[in-house]
Amino acid sequence: MIDIQSLPDHRNLPIDKVGIKNLRYPITVLDRAKGSQHTVATINMYVDLPDKYKGTHMSRFVEMLHLFRQEVSLKKFAMILDQMKSHLNAESAHIEVTFPYFMEKLAPISEAPGLMDYTCAIIGSSDAAGNVDLISEVVVPISSVCPCSKEISEGGAHNQRGEVRLSIRFNRFIWMEDMIELVERCASCEVYSILKRVDEKCVTERGFENPKFVEDIVRDIATRLKADDNITWFTVSAENFESIHNHSAYASITSVERLKGKVLIQDVYDFCETGGETSG
Amino acid sequence: MIDIQSLPDHRNLPIDKVGIKNLRYPITVLDRAKGSQHTVATINMYVDLPDKYKGTHMSRFVEMLHLFRQEVSLKKFAMILDQMKSHLNAESAHIEVTFPYFMEKLAPISEAPGLMDYTCAIIGSSDAAGNVDLISEVVVPISSVCPCSKEISEGGAHNQRGEVRLSIRFNRFIWMEDMIELVERCASCEVYSILKRVDEKCVTERGFENPKFVEDIVRDIATRLKADDNITWFTVSAENFESIHNHSAYASITSVERLKGKVLIQDVYDFCETGGETSG
Amino acid sequence: MIDIQSLPDHRNLPIDKVGIKNLRYPITVLDRAKGSQHTVATINMYVDLPDKYKGTHMSRFVEMLHLFRQEVSLKKFAMILDQMKSHLNAESAHIEVTFPYFMEKLAPISEAPGLMDYTCAIIGSSDAAGNVDLISEVVVPISSVCPCSKEISEGGAHNQRGEVRLSIRFNRFIWMEDMIELVERCASCEVYSILKRVDEKCVTERGFENPKFVEDIVRDIATRLKADDNITWFTVSAENFESIHNHSAYASITSVERLKGKVLIQDVYDFCETGGETSG
Amino acid sequence: MIDIQSLPDHRNLPIDKVGIKNLRYPITVLDRAKGSQHTVATINMYVDLPDKYKGTHMSRFVEMLHLFRQEVSLKKFAMILDQMKSHLNAESAHIEVTFPYFMEKLAPISEAPGLMDYTCAIIGSSDAAGNVDLISEVVVPISSVCPCSKEISEGGAHNQRGEVRLSIRFNRFIWMEDMIELVERCASCEVYSILKRVDEKCVTERGFENPKFVEDIVRDIATRLKADDNITWFTVSAENFESIHNHSAYASITSVERLKGKVLIQDVYDFCETGGETSG
Repeated sequence: MIDIQSLPDHRNLPIDKVGIKNLRYPITVLDRAKGSQHTVATINMYVDLPDKYKGTHMSRFVEMLHLFRQEVSLKKFAMILDQMKSHLNAESAHIEVTFPYFMEKLAPISEAPGLMDYTCAIIGSSDAAGNVDLISEVVVPISSVCPCSKEISEGGAHNQRGEVRLSIRFNRFIWMEDMIELVERCASCEVYSILKRVDEKCVTERGFENPKFVEDIVRDIATRLKADDNITWFTVSAENFESIHNHSAYASITSVERLKGKVLIQDVYDFCETGGETSG
Repeated sequence: MIDIQSLPDHRNLPIDKVGIKNLRYPITVLDRAKGSQHTVATINMYVDLPDKYKGTHMSRFVEMLHLFRQEVSLKKFAMILDQMKSHLNAESAHIEVTFPYFMEKLAPISEAPGLMDYTCAIIGSSDAAGNVDLISEVVVPISSVCPCSKEISEGGAHNQRGEVRLSIRFNRFIWMEDMIELVERCASCEVYSILKRVDEKCVTERGFENPKFVEDIVRDIATRLKADDNITWFTVSAENFESIHNHSAYASITSVERLKGKVLIQDVYDFCETGGETSG
Repeated sequence: MIDIQSLPDHRNLPIDKVGIKNLRYPITVLDRAKGSQHTVATINMYVDLPDKYKGTHMSRFVEMLHLFRQEVSLKKFAMILDQMKSHLNAESAHIEVTFPYFMEKLAPISEAPGLMDYTCAIIGSSDAAGNVDLISEVVVPISSVCPCSKEISEGGAHNQRGEVRLSIRFNRFIWMEDMIELVERCASCEVYSILKRVDEKCVTERGFENPKFVEDIVRDIATRLKADDNITWFTVSAENFESIHNHSAYASITSVERLKGKVLIQDVYDFCETGGETSG
Repeated sequence: MIDIQSLPDHRNLPIDKVGIKNLRYPITVLDRAKGSQHTVATINMYVDLPDKYKGTHMSRFVEMLHLFRQEVSLKKFAMILDQMKSHLNAESAHIEVTFPYFMEKLAPISEAPGLMDYTCAIIGSSDAAGNVDLISEVVVPISSVCPCSKEISEGGAHNQRGEVRLSIRFNRFIWMEDMIELVERCASCEVYSILKRVDEKCVTERGFENPKFVEDIVRDIATRLKADDNITWFTVSAENFESIHNHSAYASITSVERLKGKVLIQDVYDFCETGGETSG
């Protein structure tokens, strides 16, 4: 049976990224508290295509994912990228894995247990020189109280749910839980899945004592990230689903890249073998 | 060229609805203040298919819409439904038209002008006996302040953006603007596209003085609807995008149908010719 | 601390549904092949609220879900609904649980294994008289080839991905896998996550030999459902994401309710204890 | 009334982007055939915030948009960016305007008229040195037929709706219509809102005679863009909503930036005054 994809191409144009997009797949990810966690990811996997070939072989992406789904983590990304390159005869590879992630969280006073949901992503690339670039991303729902509204009003202050998106590059393995907690400490107040009446009183008062603009939230997060020498690059944005408008307030800060944030593939293998144990 | 759709079918099964879905089209709708308004709709158009035919003729739906797009309104729906039935040799017809709709709104103190966006829909059906059933729907963003949080907390009260969805059947033409204003009057406070500092103070205080659960909002709306003898049926829901949770609080009330809410097509034609003038 | 929710209300209006909406939570569901499957659900939980109370107690919904998350299934729904009614002092209860669900599926010729994703839902209500109403729903991606295009064209035929949504009421426990397979057998061809070249040839030819309109697909599914005396009610729709248009073709059939499809809660408990074993 | 936003900030951190996000607003855009077109946009507007200030003034963004909404176009973007900088005392400004855009299109044989919808965007930035950077983007639905499937199968070939996203930087004004038509010429076949039977035969056969992978589509578009010296930079991606899978096939090519693609604001004013007339 003829392999059309492998036919020569004469347009003289290499393709940057070719592969599969929006594949939904069950995966297992690392969990700081429990070791591992089952979730359902949306996955994009791409390689480059040299100018001499007409097409890539799409089924191989899903075959590889099917093998790797039992542990999709920062620790395994370098290996997955490496195998994508070899199985697809490519010089570069790129993966994006996005998934809901849950942490058990106790209500602040009653300590009622519930699971909070976050949207997380791992994005990895490996280039022709063997450089691996990893980005870890978390989207964290938060509560924010408006400082202006509190100051100028006789009573109350408008507040709302917001969403902080934080992406980082790093030197050593970092738990998504650590990223999430860093963000939550910089909000007016964190949000919960279960709050009893005593807890509702607590979070209302905590937020009201701690009013913050989106500008304050991204500045406070950026300040902490800059003080952490494990973080080599970051971009953070805060979006408030304003309670007085039908649009959002938004602010973002992106770091100047402190150091390359790209490490040789061998280094990543090493960190993958040791990083989790030492950093968790 | 053979007409496959018109071939006989032997499965002995009529189809309730067949047609086109999720067609995006520019339309013009009635505007209480300006006469008419340009917007972009997402449209579903269906007819029934008798058991004897294999398929319907999909292109005719778009042809009809192309003709009618200059005025898509409650007033024209009976005629559009009528023509769908005749052009497609069908016994029943059904349309759903959903679109963003804008109203100019002045900030409460500074009177700065801005346009507020609402999502509106008109849903119409015509059955084999010629009964026309029309539903008008608005989705209204609102602000809600939690009565419990205000009562139990030393300062502030959690509040958030919410969304009220109201669908009605009615005897006489009714402006979507009237439906929107009815909903806004039942929120803790309405929302705006532009608020200067004096306005922000006003809406913060107004909301804080007027705390409401989702339960209160749907009850207050339902009370007003029940008192209006033009409304023959309604369903109203309120959803709060909670500022202390990552999920929504929700409440809904659906009326017992007071009277049929279905009128003969001739009656609708009559109301279409006269209703706008008398009810606007 | 005052319980505002329990204060009396004087508007004299009971609320049909009040509770939480769009809560994302990890759950475990029944799996015909493996016993159980981990997934992530989006959940709505509502009860009614008598006219005499101002509000419901939202945190109790999440507390209950937290307990039940280890097995969310048709078999447990009657019990969950029952407990919602008792913990919230309500007369009626309603739950909607929607989640991605995966089945292992072998490519038709190469037998390469992959996981296919479906969106499934379980919807349950329990009324004041203790009647439990359960609906099981699956959304199945399919491939459809246009019979008209095939007939009139010199070569090829337009085809596309489509989506069939099937909801049923039933007498005895039914696996979602059975519903999915019933739908897939009525498409031009089913879809897969992994197809090697030999498989691609197979599915292309199978689809081309089996052209179907959306009308054909819903009729073929409805015919099978009507012949199954376990199915007491159904609604089925097919939507084609047309490859020649930027909108969808759509058809739907809803059954006349054959028998009530509502059983006393004791019956459901009985079926829950025995149904899975006998029907799987 | 105190202006909290203007208070000094001591974190010593400037903010890259602060402003409003996801504001829905009716706008008027340029239309090659009719002069102008009404549509509804989703808009993000940001400026930078120097480290010395606590916050920006969000209401001013909406005030400016309210003034400019009558003509939102490439031609006016430099002026809008300029005014954002002066009204908000900012060094840089950024806008993203996304909207559905319609072109009248005749069916290929019957010449039945219909409106095709495209999603378009204009993205503009102005930096501290007064450099203006403009990007024009179109998302074009297309039809693609698989070359491999056609070659290996006895009859037919799988095909599907796809979506091409093209973003460009340029020297001289360019119509979005030109970008859309360039993309459509590189698909297996373009898509239409209305097709009669003779047209359906035509598009089926045209596509079948012209099979293309996503790789072919992006290469053919990139080849045309590289030959056009008005285009200074581009990124193009093609995504097929595969009819045999429940995920997409994807390919993208991004140009090496040929020349800066950023012009001084005075140049843009000049081009704005003259460009439309000469380039349309």
